[in-house]
Amino acid sequence: MTADGTILAERAAEAGILNIQNGAFADALEDMAGDWLAADSAMPIVASGMIGSRQGWTEVPYLELPTAAADLTLYAHAGFQRTIHFVPGLALRDKDGVPDVMRGEETQIFGASADGMYLLPGSHSKWALVEAGRITWFATFMTGELFAALKDHTILGRMMSGSGNDDAAFARGAKYGFGGSGTLQRLFSARTLALFGELPESGVAAYLSGLLIGTEIAEARALVQNSADMITIIGNPDLGQHYLAALSHCGLRGCQAAEGAAARGQWRIAKAAGILAS
Amino acid sequence: MTADGTILAERAAEAGILNIQNGAFADALEDMAGDWLAADSAMPIVASGMIGSRQGWTEVPYLELPTAAADLTLYAHAGFQRTIHFVPGLALRDKDGVPDVMRGEETQIFGASADGMYLLPGSHSKWALVEAGRITWFATFMTGELFAALKDHTILGRMMSGSGNDDAAFARGAKYGFGGSGTLQRLFSARTLALFGELPESGVAAYLSGLLIGTEIAEARALVQNSADMITIIGNPDLGQHYLAALSHCGLRGCQAAEGAAARGQWRIAKAAGILAS
Repeated sequence: MTADGTILAERAAEAGILNIQNGAFADALEDMAGDWLAADSAMPIVASGMIGSRQGWTEVPYLELPTAAADLTLYAHAGFQRTIHFVPGLALRDKDGVPDVMRGEETQIFGASADGMYLLPGSHSKWALVEAGRITWFATFMTGELFAALKDHTILGRMMSGSGNDDAAFARGAKYGFGGSGTLQRLFSARTLALFGELPESGVAAYLSGLLIGTEIAEARALVQNSADMITIIGNPDLGQHYLAALSHCGLRGCQAAEGAAARGQWRIAKAAGILAS
Repeated sequence: MTADGTILAERAAEAGILNIQNGAFADALEDMAGDWLAADSAMPIVASGMIGSRQGWTEVPYLELPTAAADLTLYAHAGFQRTIHFVPGLALRDKDGVPDVMRGEETQIFGASADGMYLLPGSHSKWALVEAGRITWFATFMTGELFAALKDHTILGRMMSGSGNDDAAFARGAKYGFGGSGTLQRLFSARTLALFGELPESGVAAYLSGLLIGTEIAEARALVQNSADMITIIGNPDLGQHYLAALSHCGLRGCQAAEGAAARGQWRIAKAAGILAS
């Protein structure tokens, strides 16, 4: 990026922390961006996400809520040819004192840069509330990982056939999941509806996906009081489309944030920390 | 059993329908009880459970609730050296019209033979209400199968170490699961508590087990209004002990039914159907 936040070039790789052997993070960064680094010896490097976790390059803390972009003190790490600035994660505790954490999503949320309710779908979906420029609440839902485990390793997966696309089955699942409590009980409906011939086997995967996403939406809505009636989705556009559809089936409104939220967030955090050339 | 229901001998085998190849059910029965059959050519045979399912020996229907033992019309099957009497399953629909089913548990419940709330723990836990001698409600919870899938195939399992026994962690999980809605969100606590050093890795499996069982108890209690304050557990005594402990952590009372409920239930159903010598 330029110093004013314009993105000049982007690169992505499947080089997450689970794919790096023996802590070879420096090599991975050189492979990915060595030419950029060589071309500008003063270019600051900002790192966010799981790279700053216990299993990452260096562990940086979780900050307590509420948090504005300017509160995200960057942690300078010297284990590379030049300083790397790590963005800390966030943590909060629920009413029972149980902690929840995020790493990386705070950067995407600050990249979106507006008050409101955010949804970041994935293996571990995050919902977050931004008020007066500060993240004041968030929660994690194991929706994506649970779907994969149920699909691949339970009797529900044995009912599934075909590509998995079935809009009507997805809608039915989303409404049923949103409509009531009782997740352990409602999961079984993916089996019984197929058993009774009321759901085609080609629709079981879509039904289960809808069921879990509808459940997630209901749980998130129950956890926080918020007057915002628009939910902004950040992340993979295809997955975002599924969530937009599910929100609509649940009578809620959603929109997808512009792509590049992570880069914009890193720029804003770096700017607030004063590490960019003025 | 004698004609008055006294159990004379019992045999068990790992010969469930998933272990029988090419529909060789007759051979499996011969292997298991051929000498008993040869010794008494008039002895009636009663079969209940998944052996009467679509994947079993012959598919028999699901009856609608409410159902008394005398309502369980036996289905005579002629594909063996003598008639086999199959017990039908039960089905009901929830307020959204979604079906739920049981096969085999109805036999165990009638073996217990009293009004009240029943709990049959397992991969697919069942709760059932018996009023005036009739099963009037039941529901299935995917607790056991979900635990196995989460333990073996998600990040939660990667936090676990040791044998899995930890009464304090189990109690904490049961209370947290029972205390609130939000299953997809609360699951993540098994990770964050370990991450923050507030739950030993040797206790994560017990915590997750407690969390799911506590959630099941809360869901079941929310689904049905029932004045009974005692829950009778039928099934494996070791698993039953876990559920007894969880009920206690949730402020509820439970007891374990005497062993042999399935056999007693088959005898009662056979007696009501008039197939026993008088």
